[in-house]
Amino acid sequence: MDLKALAQTVLERQPFNRLLGMELLEAQPGSVAFRLPLKEAFYQHLGAVHGGVVATLLDNALTYAAGSLLGPGVLTVEFKVNFLKPGKGEALLARGYAVSQGKRLAVARSEVYALEGGAETLVALGQGTILRISG
Amino acid sequence: MDLKALAQTVLERQPFNRLLGMELLEAQPGSVAFRLPLKEAFYQHLGAVHGGVVATLLDNALTYAAGSLLGPGVLTVEFKVNFLKPGKGEALLARGYAVSQGKRLAVARSEVYALEGGAETLVALGQGTILRISG
Amino acid sequence: MDLKALAQTVLERQPFNRLLGMELLEAQPGSVAFRLPLKEAFYQHLGAVHGGVVATLLDNALTYAAGSLLGPGVLTVEFKVNFLKPGKGEALLARGYAVSQGKRLAVARSEVYALEGGAETLVALGQGTILRISG
Amino acid sequence: MDLKALAQTVLERQPFNRLLGMELLEAQPGSVAFRLPLKEAFYQHLGAVHGGVVATLLDNALTYAAGSLLGPGVLTVEFKVNFLKPGKGEALLARGYAVSQGKRLAVARSEVYALEGGAETLVALGQGTILRISG
Repeated sequence: MDLKALAQTVLERQPFNRLLGMELLEAQPGSVAFRLPLKEAFYQHLGAVHGGVVATLLDNALTYAAGSLLGPGVLTVEFKVNFLKPGKGEALLARGYAVSQGKRLAVARSEVYALEGGAETLVALGQGTILRISG
Repeated sequence: MDLKALAQTVLERQPFNRLLGMELLEAQPGSVAFRLPLKEAFYQHLGAVHGGVVATLLDNALTYAAGSLLGPGVLTVEFKVNFLKPGKGEALLARGYAVSQGKRLAVARSEVYALEGGAETLVALGQGTILRISG
Repeated sequence: MDLKALAQTVLERQPFNRLLGMELLEAQPGSVAFRLPLKEAFYQHLGAVHGGVVATLLDNALTYAAGSLLGPGVLTVEFKVNFLKPGKGEALLARGYAVSQGKRLAVARSEVYALEGGAETLVALGQGTILRISG
Repeated sequence: MDLKALAQTVLERQPFNRLLGMELLEAQPGSVAFRLPLKEAFYQHLGAVHGGVVATLLDNALTYAAGSLLGPGVLTVEFKVNFLKPGKGEALLARGYAVSQGKRLAVARSEVYALEGGAETLVALGQGTILRISG
């Protein structure tokens, strides 16, 4: 099974990602991309997507990017998010890439973009540590 | 309107928190608590609640704790999460408290606990910066 | 050798801590305290101690707090710092405490206080992950 | 005065950077680079440069990159560091670049590399928020 098919299989076994409607766009060794079509239910009260939705995208992007190198049995140890602009529009796009890989720990960065009327706006930055726990 | 009623009003205007079923337990000057009853839809594939759900709780706890001091027009600038144990059980509990407050910026910490069979387990730690944008 | 004596031995073998004049105040299972007498050489140009000095204190506090549980062969995997107030005065005080401990990874928090004219002001917050690499 | 000369002037007014021997290599709108020749006094006891030295480089790179856009009166609000490899060799090199800029807040990323025998190794990643306080 190729890497994208494997990542897709893991994604489909994650109820929270199914609840949100998370779509896997790409999975290559060390990098991944996700797309999340936006619904009204994802917003907070000030006209932007809730930070928890953006954090979920960043977390997915970090973990799958590291998992593409370490294997599917990985957990996020920690991550940090900086919010730059309100998330809004038709969809959010997340890109993640592994920056460093050891035997059990990897470090990755990720970005979330808002797609609105053909324009792509950088919305948030993530940086975190992923641990291989099996495999 | 007292602080808890005000916080409850904001919470009810946030679709994503309504989607998850987020409950406000407490809101005092500088500290808040939330409770999230767990559903199967919140999990990932390894038997733990998805990190995005835990991050949403930490973010709420940070933002409402700071908002209890700065006013309701606040945004999370950034936060960091450390995951300690798998989130699982009947519900997750989040506590947030402001540590420092300036005119426009506040710094807060938060914790998430898993409630399972009467036991409370520390699941995650948050630390972040909140900005007053209005009011 | 007791824990404080062991921590003191490690500290004396760390040239950068000797360069700064770092003093170990306390070391108990899961918690430590350091004191750094301030010199003009530690400041930046705006009348506050350089963030790098504060970060060094937070890092020491995190690492020694975790090391008091995991053993002396530990490394900081990552940490995050929030700066609250300018560091200045006679000395900075750092307190660190482990929040969670696994076999190889521990999570800790730390705080830095400025001591000035008898008053203690909270200056910075840290949160990070420590890895046991030997022992 | 051009941007690099201005940044050099600020650097020379920062005693802690002078203590370490911090060298400014580059300063352009939104990006900077520093070089720190390594001395024995910068190490900890396990053969790597102390995390506080690496954090100082990341902090400088974040703050000067943001300051190149916001002006010289800036403070680091917060930052996060991931340590990837031991810092060692002849010198450390830090690169910082602003990712997002508002009126008062900017977000930046930075990296530290170890220069050893002609090779450049990625040692640490930073991400943080900078606040304009004057000017």
